[in-house]
Amino acid sequence: MKIASPTLLVDEETCRANIGKMKSRAQKAKAVLRPHFKTHQSAEIAAWFKDAGIEQCTVSSVSMAKYFASHGWKDLSIAFPYNPLEADAVNELAADLNLNIWIESEESLTEVKSKIKNPIGYFIGIDVGYHRTGIDPRQLDKIARLVGQQSENHIFKGFMSHAGHTYGAKGAENIRWLYEGAKKMLLPLRDKFGGIVSFGDTPSCSIIEDLSDYDELRPGNFIFYDWMQHDLASCKVEEIAVCLACPVVAIHPDRNEVIVQAGAVHLSKDYIEEEAGKTFGKAVRLDSSGWSRQIMGNVVRLSQEHGTIRLEDPELASVKIGDLLGIIPVHSCLAADLQGHYISTKGEKIEKLIKS
Amino acid sequence: MKIASPTLLVDEETCRANIGKMKSRAQKAKAVLRPHFKTHQSAEIAAWFKDAGIEQCTVSSVSMAKYFASHGWKDLSIAFPYNPLEADAVNELAADLNLNIWIESEESLTEVKSKIKNPIGYFIGIDVGYHRTGIDPRQLDKIARLVGQQSENHIFKGFMSHAGHTYGAKGAENIRWLYEGAKKMLLPLRDKFGGIVSFGDTPSCSIIEDLSDYDELRPGNFIFYDWMQHDLASCKVEEIAVCLACPVVAIHPDRNEVIVQAGAVHLSKDYIEEEAGKTFGKAVRLDSSGWSRQIMGNVVRLSQEHGTIRLEDPELASVKIGDLLGIIPVHSCLAADLQGHYISTKGEKIEKLIKS
Repeated sequence: MKIASPTLLVDEETCRANIGKMKSRAQKAKAVLRPHFKTHQSAEIAAWFKDAGIEQCTVSSVSMAKYFASHGWKDLSIAFPYNPLEADAVNELAADLNLNIWIESEESLTEVKSKIKNPIGYFIGIDVGYHRTGIDPRQLDKIARLVGQQSENHIFKGFMSHAGHTYGAKGAENIRWLYEGAKKMLLPLRDKFGGIVSFGDTPSCSIIEDLSDYDELRPGNFIFYDWMQHDLASCKVEEIAVCLACPVVAIHPDRNEVIVQAGAVHLSKDYIEEEAGKTFGKAVRLDSSGWSRQIMGNVVRLSQEHGTIRLEDPELASVKIGDLLGIIPVHSCLAADLQGHYISTKGEKIEKLIKS
Repeated sequence: MKIASPTLLVDEETCRANIGKMKSRAQKAKAVLRPHFKTHQSAEIAAWFKDAGIEQCTVSSVSMAKYFASHGWKDLSIAFPYNPLEADAVNELAADLNLNIWIESEESLTEVKSKIKNPIGYFIGIDVGYHRTGIDPRQLDKIARLVGQQSENHIFKGFMSHAGHTYGAKGAENIRWLYEGAKKMLLPLRDKFGGIVSFGDTPSCSIIEDLSDYDELRPGNFIFYDWMQHDLASCKVEEIAVCLACPVVAIHPDRNEVIVQAGAVHLSKDYIEEEAGKTFGKAVRLDSSGWSRQIMGNVVRLSQEHGTIRLEDPELASVKIGDLLGIIPVHSCLAADLQGHYISTKGEKIEKLIKS
């Protein structure tokens, strides 16, 4: 397939290898792998998980749950606090699926019990230090009240947590330390109240050698990885499975800059701070099998449609207007969300959920 | 229409008023208003411009040009450096439209001359200090060579510039200063080479009293405005015409935080720096006519689907799980790009270009 405009390339072989590695890690830990599908949002890519024997998944919205349910997924957890305004849609999904939801308040659980008539599982969301969502694990009375409200059709499943603060970690050692802290908060809850412990986040699941304390793992990003994960030591550059192909449209040798059509609407405005400043992506060359893992330069600025890549010679001198360059995204989940479809490195179109 | 999940509300009345005011400013300046449609990407909203007598528009990609051409727009400028890889699509569009493109290199113009057979206009992109794209206006030899390459079907139209550095300005005075600087670079080029001067950016077009030095104005954001523009003094809070309606899903009174479903996939990760830190949006109450212009609090963090709003009492105590709150985006163009459709404050669905 001839690429003429910004297109996210997906390397299927690397994705399948990433799935295989994470599956092995989960097996070794005797934990269920319930991958988060918010990263790819694609039924075709989801099928690669099925090929690896994975039948459970996680999503972050009701619309994603509907999409994957319509593509044959029967066992889904929505890892996002229950939204009472979507009760009807959740109830409908629960009729056909093994559906689990995230609960962190008595108000929400009361709503669930009054509105959701089909059997549904609920996890109690626990805050292990990210301070985004979830209950403080020391609030044992509140947790006991939530556990105690289970009924025949409203089934307490255990505890769910997302250690998103690992994304702010400084390297593998710091991630291990955060992981140990999370364990000390979660395992006593399982001992006291029963149920399983479901744990997420790609950095922990990629780095921690022994994940056997948990019953279920919900990483998502690992299917693609990205430069943020590379920066956190979650992956090697060879394990990154997506790259934005983008046309070179202008060159400014006087300031060592190449302008590509690759903006915030293709990559998102997520960035990492490096010594040289903000980086919105890493430029690489495209080749017949996909892209090189040799970094040429950084995307140093982004506006809606424009990306600015800083290049030094000899790379700068080798780039021409009308070339396609590759950009490894800083955050693949957000870059993926911005696409209408993907193209595989073999040139095939890969469909995904689109916003309508 | 009942809203249950994150939805960008559009206030049609405010949009039409914003169009009217910008049209008056252009008329007073005796300049053509050629609004940039990358902000809304909607044929229905484009029709509001047509109602105001506007027949020309600007887009930032070939796919946007195709979309608006298919909805009856006949006079389009693509304000993005010509991409030689899209020559066939551009040539096809040029057959039916008054189409103008942005040229800033001899390589690109040579490509245009060899591949585009239908009549097409070209503007020479000039860098007035933003340092993203465009030629340094002091490169008169290069400019002369580009002007000199015109032919019967490749028509030199003039000079196009985007003073995007106004977005980094500190208030109206600074914007006026940048504007005066741009004038000193652009007007001598028109005197010397002929053609028109086409100038863009919402801050300049909203703030500068006398725009009569320019022949054409290409602001885009002003149809919606947003908190960044408010921060730049380009608009009043009453002139902001979009607001994300989003469900409250969790409340953490201990840290004065409300969690809403309104993440990077709804608002983008664009932010402004305020005294209190990064702000990704401004929280407001929704009401029967749309939303209040009284700011309740700031969106202080964003992940893929989650937004964290910091609220003080009594606002905090008044919010319940299951409520809808409004968020005025920091950058409406990017928030709009992320939507599959809009809902008007009267409850009607507004279609837009979607990525497929």
